[in-house]
Amino acid sequence: MECTVPPPDRLRRPLVIPYKYMMSAGPTNASARVLHALSNPIIGPLHKEAYEVLDDIKAGLQYVFQTKNEMTFAMCGSGTLGTEASIVNLYEPGDTVLVACNGIWSERAADIAERLGANVHTIETTHGKTFTLKEIEDALEKYKPQIFFIVQAESTTGVFQDVQHIGPLCHKYNCLLIVDAVVGVGGVPIFVDKWDIDVAFAGSQKALGGPTGLAPITFGPRAVKKMMNRKTKVHSFYMDALEFAKNWKSLGPEVPRGYHYTLSMNLLFALREALAEIVEEGLENRWKRHHETAERVRAGVHKLGLELFPHEGETPLNCVTTVRTKPGIDWRKLRHYAMDVYKMDLPGGFGKTAKQVHRIGLMGSNANPYTADFTLEVLKDAIEHCKISE
Amino acid sequence: MECTVPPPDRLRRPLVIPYKYMMSAGPTNASARVLHALSNPIIGPLHKEAYEVLDDIKAGLQYVFQTKNEMTFAMCGSGTLGTEASIVNLYEPGDTVLVACNGIWSERAADIAERLGANVHTIETTHGKTFTLKEIEDALEKYKPQIFFIVQAESTTGVFQDVQHIGPLCHKYNCLLIVDAVVGVGGVPIFVDKWDIDVAFAGSQKALGGPTGLAPITFGPRAVKKMMNRKTKVHSFYMDALEFAKNWKSLGPEVPRGYHYTLSMNLLFALREALAEIVEEGLENRWKRHHETAERVRAGVHKLGLELFPHEGETPLNCVTTVRTKPGIDWRKLRHYAMDVYKMDLPGGFGKTAKQVHRIGLMGSNANPYTADFTLEVLKDAIEHCKISE
Repeated sequence: MECTVPPPDRLRRPLVIPYKYMMSAGPTNASARVLHALSNPIIGPLHKEAYEVLDDIKAGLQYVFQTKNEMTFAMCGSGTLGTEASIVNLYEPGDTVLVACNGIWSERAADIAERLGANVHTIETTHGKTFTLKEIEDALEKYKPQIFFIVQAESTTGVFQDVQHIGPLCHKYNCLLIVDAVVGVGGVPIFVDKWDIDVAFAGSQKALGGPTGLAPITFGPRAVKKMMNRKTKVHSFYMDALEFAKNWKSLGPEVPRGYHYTLSMNLLFALREALAEIVEEGLENRWKRHHETAERVRAGVHKLGLELFPHEGETPLNCVTTVRTKPGIDWRKLRHYAMDVYKMDLPGGFGKTAKQVHRIGLMGSNANPYTADFTLEVLKDAIEHCKISE
Repeated sequence: MECTVPPPDRLRRPLVIPYKYMMSAGPTNASARVLHALSNPIIGPLHKEAYEVLDDIKAGLQYVFQTKNEMTFAMCGSGTLGTEASIVNLYEPGDTVLVACNGIWSERAADIAERLGANVHTIETTHGKTFTLKEIEDALEKYKPQIFFIVQAESTTGVFQDVQHIGPLCHKYNCLLIVDAVVGVGGVPIFVDKWDIDVAFAGSQKALGGPTGLAPITFGPRAVKKMMNRKTKVHSFYMDALEFAKNWKSLGPEVPRGYHYTLSMNLLFALREALAEIVEEGLENRWKRHHETAERVRAGVHKLGLELFPHEGETPLNCVTTVRTKPGIDWRKLRHYAMDVYKMDLPGGFGKTAKQVHRIGLMGSNANPYTADFTLEVLKDAIEHCKISE
């Protein structure tokens, strides 16, 4: 049998990927140790060495999520898969889902729940602001949802939502709490057990400093109970957490390991190393390092005559600093300038903040004073070069 | 804030992954070039270098699928994500899905369709046999499905299903055809355009010789038309192919690139290199190499006094050879022996073939006479050592 579609010549060129300074809201630059781990030999997800790595990751994720949840693992997919998996596993037909909308990620969660056929209600706040407990309680009372979804670390607005008292509030109204902590975990505190969060998920390539392509997630006892007592099967086979849990031995010592789908072990090797680096440093030190770096950036931004995006009284996010765009500066040009001249990824806003902000992500190994100062230098130079001529 | 869950000491140990001979049904061993590509620096999915890689992959996948479909790309997830994505994108509430069941992968497809709420019908055949056109046409006539799902390369039974005349048959009955070609693509011929297949998907870590964690997939014009005219949104946001297509510029030149979710670029670098190796070798040469290797293995298996699993008259699969278990040999022990003594993954069956077969996968760079002979030597030695004592 002869081919009619010929081999494409473009694949005869070598692959050359330049080093970039990833000051985006993620992916961030991974350390050499993490990148190196990606190239380990291929093994199967049911090999004994794979089990060791999965157990390592489970322990490391329990540490960064501050939880004893056995249902703690990394699903194969992006952070958005984490959003969808958190909802699809808890949702049963007829359920009402309440979403606190203050940025693109929560809008995405509402979209996901709608696609499943849920009764979706949202509470909204101005971009750049967070929700008060009063606003949340009013909505829980009014809509009586089974699931409440909120974002802890909104990377498009750069605002930090305090989530420590929301769990008990939800449980008072027989509602489960999902926290999107994609950009936060590893960079800012989260205490899944102490704060009584039912499901939380992270991004592997953000403050954790790992590779793209994994969605770390943890399910607490209330969530597991609901999943165990489901009347209908989870809508998605791929994202079915109780099936996925078998490979990770997360269903208790008496349930044997089993195959769900072929895990991307090479990505997991890299996540394992990213978690090992966090263990080496200590989580408190890492939070402090992210905080100090962010403080330095915020001070530098003020010196450049720019304003932060988060509203007065709000806590700015330590992982991603959002700066208001300034009249007289061509922000699109600025972005290209930083990339072309410095190979630096300095993105603008996203979603409703699209033309309003400029973002500086300093996470993982990039959260240090030298990288912060370099980034501020680039920003200063770019502003000089990107003034709109009158 | 102080941590109450302490850092796990197990993450203070170094990561050591041994080289294994991956003669499983996948993942197979990746070449040094492919593994090396995984460690490239992190870049974002909207960088110009990423666009080049995506265009490379699209062209490479069009080549291996033998198609001109613009909607050809690699989704981030395992082969099972490919199965689910193929169905979830075509399925609309009320649709009937017909699945040809002759192994675990088609059973999985039926499960996925049921979870979506589809009217699911199956046709069954003995494991180790394929379906005739007559059987398929009878079922199309009887059930009038909108979607028909069939597996080309059944890795759990080692049987090759001829799919070249099924497309036109389905279209006669206003039905779309999905072909699961996970284990086949890159190892055995598939002609998506010539055979009029509406959706086909592959595994990245099988005969393509790439990394685990990507699901190459292609959607033909009939499939795209149905997707464009959907009355309801795709149930899954993550798997929504028309959204995903934006990053790949697969919706035509006038639709600008856009973000759907953060692609795992490092996995894509490796897939790009795997496809570059295929272009270098030429697809016909590669099919021939897989065929010759499989012939050599089949002859060797006969010499050892073993029988192939596929029924008389069926075409055995060139990527994975299935051998019937023989009384007097402890196949579980054999598996452990091969792994412990030779670090070789020689798996048993899976699903209904669980205790019935033993599998030898020789795909990608492993499809060569030396590796085939080595594998046969290990098998011979293992049989000697794993006789059940009377």
